[in-house]
Amino acid sequence: MALDDVKIKQLQDTANRLRILSIEATNAAKSGHPTSCASMAEVMSVLFFNTLRYSTKEPKHPSNDRFVLSKGHAAPILYATWAEAGLFPPEEVLNLRKLDSDLEGHPTPRLNFVDVATGSLGQGLSVSAGMAYVGKYVDKCDYRVYCLIGDGESAEGSIWEAMSFSSHYKLNNLCAIFDVNRLGQSEPTALGHKIETYEKRIQAFGFETFVVNGHDVKQVADAFAKASRVTDKPQAIIACTLKGKGFPGIEDRENWHGKPLGDKAKDVVNALKEQLHSANRIPHQLQSPVCKAPNVDLKAVKLSEPPNFKLGDKIATRQAYGDALVKLGRVNDRVYAMDGDTKNSTFSETYKKAFPDRYIECFIAEQNLVGVGIGFGCRARTIPFVSTFACFLSRAFDQLRMGAISQANIKCVGSHCGVSIGEDGPSQMALEDIAMFRTIPGCTVFYPCDAVSTERAVELAAQHHGIDFIRTSRPATPVIYSNDTVFEIGKAKIVKSSGADQCLVIGAGITLHEAIKAADALKTQHGVSIRVMDPFTIKPIDRDAIISNAAECGNRIVVVEDHYPEGGIGEAVAGALADQVNIRIKKLAVHEVPRSGPPDVLVDKYGIGSRSIIAAVHELLA
Amino acid sequence: MALDDVKIKQLQDTANRLRILSIEATNAAKSGHPTSCASMAEVMSVLFFNTLRYSTKEPKHPSNDRFVLSKGHAAPILYATWAEAGLFPPEEVLNLRKLDSDLEGHPTPRLNFVDVATGSLGQGLSVSAGMAYVGKYVDKCDYRVYCLIGDGESAEGSIWEAMSFSSHYKLNNLCAIFDVNRLGQSEPTALGHKIETYEKRIQAFGFETFVVNGHDVKQVADAFAKASRVTDKPQAIIACTLKGKGFPGIEDRENWHGKPLGDKAKDVVNALKEQLHSANRIPHQLQSPVCKAPNVDLKAVKLSEPPNFKLGDKIATRQAYGDALVKLGRVNDRVYAMDGDTKNSTFSETYKKAFPDRYIECFIAEQNLVGVGIGFGCRARTIPFVSTFACFLSRAFDQLRMGAISQANIKCVGSHCGVSIGEDGPSQMALEDIAMFRTIPGCTVFYPCDAVSTERAVELAAQHHGIDFIRTSRPATPVIYSNDTVFEIGKAKIVKSSGADQCLVIGAGITLHEAIKAADALKTQHGVSIRVMDPFTIKPIDRDAIISNAAECGNRIVVVEDHYPEGGIGEAVAGALADQVNIRIKKLAVHEVPRSGPPDVLVDKYGIGSRSIIAAVHELLA
Repeated sequence: MALDDVKIKQLQDTANRLRILSIEATNAAKSGHPTSCASMAEVMSVLFFNTLRYSTKEPKHPSNDRFVLSKGHAAPILYATWAEAGLFPPEEVLNLRKLDSDLEGHPTPRLNFVDVATGSLGQGLSVSAGMAYVGKYVDKCDYRVYCLIGDGESAEGSIWEAMSFSSHYKLNNLCAIFDVNRLGQSEPTALGHKIETYEKRIQAFGFETFVVNGHDVKQVADAFAKASRVTDKPQAIIACTLKGKGFPGIEDRENWHGKPLGDKAKDVVNALKEQLHSANRIPHQLQSPVCKAPNVDLKAVKLSEPPNFKLGDKIATRQAYGDALVKLGRVNDRVYAMDGDTKNSTFSETYKKAFPDRYIECFIAEQNLVGVGIGFGCRARTIPFVSTFACFLSRAFDQLRMGAISQANIKCVGSHCGVSIGEDGPSQMALEDIAMFRTIPGCTVFYPCDAVSTERAVELAAQHHGIDFIRTSRPATPVIYSNDTVFEIGKAKIVKSSGADQCLVIGAGITLHEAIKAADALKTQHGVSIRVMDPFTIKPIDRDAIISNAAECGNRIVVVEDHYPEGGIGEAVAGALADQVNIRIKKLAVHEVPRSGPPDVLVDKYGIGSRSIIAAVHELLA
Repeated sequence: MALDDVKIKQLQDTANRLRILSIEATNAAKSGHPTSCASMAEVMSVLFFNTLRYSTKEPKHPSNDRFVLSKGHAAPILYATWAEAGLFPPEEVLNLRKLDSDLEGHPTPRLNFVDVATGSLGQGLSVSAGMAYVGKYVDKCDYRVYCLIGDGESAEGSIWEAMSFSSHYKLNNLCAIFDVNRLGQSEPTALGHKIETYEKRIQAFGFETFVVNGHDVKQVADAFAKASRVTDKPQAIIACTLKGKGFPGIEDRENWHGKPLGDKAKDVVNALKEQLHSANRIPHQLQSPVCKAPNVDLKAVKLSEPPNFKLGDKIATRQAYGDALVKLGRVNDRVYAMDGDTKNSTFSETYKKAFPDRYIECFIAEQNLVGVGIGFGCRARTIPFVSTFACFLSRAFDQLRMGAISQANIKCVGSHCGVSIGEDGPSQMALEDIAMFRTIPGCTVFYPCDAVSTERAVELAAQHHGIDFIRTSRPATPVIYSNDTVFEIGKAKIVKSSGADQCLVIGAGITLHEAIKAADALKTQHGVSIRVMDPFTIKPIDRDAIISNAAECGNRIVVVEDHYPEGGIGEAVAGALADQVNIRIKKLAVHEVPRSGPPDVLVDKYGIGSRSIIAAVHELLA
C-alpha cells in the first residue's frame, strides 16, 4: 500500500506502542527479551498493518498470508502486535510467561495465531519454505509467507539449507526478513553490521535482496511492496537495525540480551511516549486475503486397495513403503513425499514415479527436509511423508523436538536401520533412531517386519495427527501376515505360540525373523516352545499384551533389537514393566560401534541373531 | 612443487591407477562407490604425491598435514592412495568391506591414517576447521589441513557453518576442495555444474576460490600451490569434474552412484590402462613435514585445587562448571572451551575471562560447534569442552553419533536442562538429552547435583578419553557433599539413609534435592524413612549399588527425573534391573510438552517434585 505522511506517522507510532508493550510485558514477567523486540518494531508494524493480508478473526485461515517469527525469543512483540491488531486486549500481554497464559516465553501453536513453535534458532525459514511451496504449487493460491530471522541465528546452517531450497524452487511467494541488530546473546555477532556481507551471501543463495534502514517505516514498506512484485525468486529484506532501538542508554549496547528493563523501564517508556505523534491509538485498516485456498480433507486417507502379497514372498519393508504411499496417493491428492537424495534407497522414488508433482526433492540437507515437511503439515494443507536413511534423521533431532512443541503433523520414514544394512558400515546404520523418536512427545514409532504390516503402518501414520516414525529395513524379509490382518497403534501381534510356551521373545523388523528362526530351532532341536511377539509399534508399546503373554510363558522375556540398548525396544519393555515383579527380561542389542560386513554375519556377530536368541532363552530356562 | 612434464604424466598415471584399484576393490566387495572415486582421482594424486607434507611411516604424526575425506563414501580411493603411498600393499585394498578388514565401507580411525570417521555427509569441514584452528593458534605449527567435499554434501548447512567459522578466524591453513561432479545419489545435484554459483557462495562466505578443471593435474597442482600462499583466508579449490571420469559409457551418466562396475569393469580397466604413459609404477618423491608440532601431555589434567564450598551454600551446577574448568586450565594449558553464543548462560564465560586465548566463540551453529570440538580433540592435541543449552546439543546428534565412530575425545556440557529452567518455556528445556547421550557408545553421562560433584565431574570428564556429557542445571542448588568427597564414574552416592529405609529414591540434579525434601517430609510427617541415591553418572549406571540398596529398602524404588520418560534415568534403571525379580520401580518423569512458568511450580506441576515423590513412595508402600 502506498504510504502518505499520516500513515507513516501512524505506523511509526504503532512501532513505539509495540515497544512499550514489550517492555511492560517483560517487566511484569521479570524475564524476556525487550531489546530483541525493539530492533524489529518498525518491521512488525509495517508488516502487520500495511503489508500482510489476513483476517484477525481467523488467524489461521488457509487463505491468510503467513508469518513465522524464527527468532522466537522476540515473542512479546509478536503478542503485542496481535493485540494491536485486535485479536485480544493489550492488557493480556502482561500475562506473558505466566503458567495459566498461552503467551509463553517463546511462541507455540497453543496460540491460534502461531503455526509453528520457535525458540530453537534457525528453524523458521525451512518451515516457511515448506508453507510457501504449498502455497505456490499445491494450494496454487496467492498467499505469501514472511519469515523474520535474527542476525545471530543466521549463523545456523539450516537457514542456508532453506535458502538453497527456496531459490531452487523459485519460491517468489516467500519473503525473509533479516533483523541485523548486530548483537547476539553474549557478544556481537560474527558479522556485526557488515550489511554488504549479508547481501552477498543472501544473493549468492539466490534471493532478491532489499537493504533497508529497519527503523524507517517508509523504506521498510517500499521494500515489502517491491518484494511482492518479484516473480522468479524468493526475497530477503535485510534490515539494518539497532538492538534496544529507542531505549536511551540501552540502544545498541552489549549485555542487554534477554533482560527486562527493571527500574529503567519507566524512563524508557516515557522517552518512547515522547516520540508518539498521536497520544491516542488510531485503528489500522487491515488488508484482507486476496485468494481463496482450496478446501482440503486430510481425514479421507486410506490405502486404495488392501495389501496383496503372498505369504513367504520376500520384500524389503523399505520397498513396501513406496508401494503403500502410492496407494494412499491414489485416494488423497494431498499426500506428499519428500526425501534427501536417497529416494532410490528409501523407495520414495516409487511415489515420485506415480505422482511426480507430489514429490519434492530436498537434496542432502536433512534439517531443511524435516523443516519443509513440518511446513507442509501446517494449517492442515497436506500429509507430508519425509524419508531418508534413519540415521540421517538424527540430523534433524532439534527440528523434531520443536515439531512436538509445534503440534506438527509429519510422517518420518527412516530406512537402512541397524547392522542389517551390512557393508556400508556404522556411519550408515541407524542404531539410536528408536531412542530418538521415542523421546518425542506424542510420536508413534512403527517398526513393521513385513510388507503387509508396512502398508498398514503407512496408512495408520497418515490417519494419525502428529509426528510418526516408520522404521524400515534394507534386506528383504518374508511376508508373515495374511493380507486381511488388522493392525492398530499400540497393539502387538503374536506370530508364534503354543499352549506350552516357556519364554516370550519380542523381536521387531529383522530380529522378528531371527526370533521365528530361533523358535523353529528351539522346537525341533531342543523341544522348547517359545512365543514370538511383534510389537508393531514401539511407542506406544503394548504393555498389557506383554504382561499377559509373559505370564503364560513363565514370566520369561527375551527382547532382541537391531539398535543400541539405550532407549530401544528392550528399555521400552523394561520401562513398561518396571512396576511388575516376577518377570525376568533378557535384552539383546548391539553393544558396540559395529563394522562393515555381510548383513547376516553382522546380525550374528553383534548378538541379535537366532543363535543369540536361543542362548538367551536357555539362560532364562537354566 | 613445480611440475615438469614427467611429473605431470606420473601424477596422471597415478590418478588412473587409483581409479583402477577403486574399481577392482568395489568389484571384489560387490558394493561401493567407484564413480565417486573417479571424479576425484587427479585431486587425490596431486594432493598426496605433490602437495601434502607428511610421513607415511607415521600417518598421524602431529606435524603432518591433515586430510579429511568429507565424502566418506569415496573411501576406496582414499585406501588406494595410502597403498600407493606405500603404507600397505595395493592388494590389501581388495579386502574392502570385509569383516576382518579395517578397510570399511566408510573410513574410520580404526585405520591409522584416518583422524575422523566420515560417511554422514557435510561433517568433514567443521572437524577440519577445528584442526586448522589448533594448528594456527594452539600448536602454532605450519601444518595445513585439506578437506575434500562432495558437491552433493555441500547442500548440508553444516558446511556453511564451517565456512563462516573458518573465514571469521582467518584459517589460512585450511583448504577445502569441492568435487563438483554434478551428480548426486538419485539425481543431479541442485546446482549441477553451475560453477559460478559455487564460486559466488564460497567467496561470499569468505574463502579465496580457485576454479579448476579437476582432471587437469597441472591446474590442480597450481591451485594448491597458490592456495598455500594465501595469508589471511581459508581457500577453496572448486574442481569441475565428471562422475565416473574415464569410465567409457559410465562417465557423467546418471544411475551409477554407489554401484560397482560388475562385468563392465574389465573393459573400463583396460580403457584406463590404455591411458597410462608408463606401464610400470614409478615411486613418488613425497614431501616431509615442515614444522614440529609441540609435545603435549593431556594426561596431566586435574583440578588445581580441591572444591572449596560450604555445605548448604547455593550454587548452580552450571556456574560450578565454569569455575571447575578454570581450575583445569590452570594445570593444563591444552584445555579449551567453546560455546555457541550462550557463554553467559552456560558459564563457559568464566573460562574465557580467565584464559581468553583458550576460549573459541563458535556463534549460533551447534553442528559446527561440536564438529570443531571433535577437530580440537583429534591427534590428542587438546581437551575440548563444548557447551550450550543442553537442548541445542540435539542439533548435533548426528555429529555426536559420528563422533563415537570417530573415537572422538570431546566433553559436552549442556546447561538449562528440564522444566526447572522455568519461564523460557519448552523450546529451551532439554528433556531428551540424557536419552540422546546415552545412545552414544562409550559416552559417559554425568548429572551432578551440586557444586562439589560438578567440579569432580568436570575433572573426571577431562581425564576420560571419549565422549562425555555433563548435564548442568539453571537454578542454584545447595552444596550437599563435603569438599573431600571422592567421586568415580559409575559409582552412586547414598545421600540419605537409615537402618529402616522402606524405599530407595533415585534422583539427580534438581530432583535429587526434591528427593531430599521428600525424605525429610516423609520422616517428620509420616514416620517413613527412605534412602536417597544420587547416581552421579547415568551412564554407566551403578547397577550393583542400586540392587544392593534396593534390597535393603524392601525392593522398592522410585526414580524421579527432570526429563521425558523415554531413555532417561528411569529406563536406565529399569533396563539395568530387567533381569531382577522382586524389585518394583516407580518412574516419575515429565510426560507432556511443558509450559512456561516459575521453576518450582513447573517441577511440581509435571510430577517430579517432592509432593509427587511422597505420593509415589506411599503407593509403593500401600
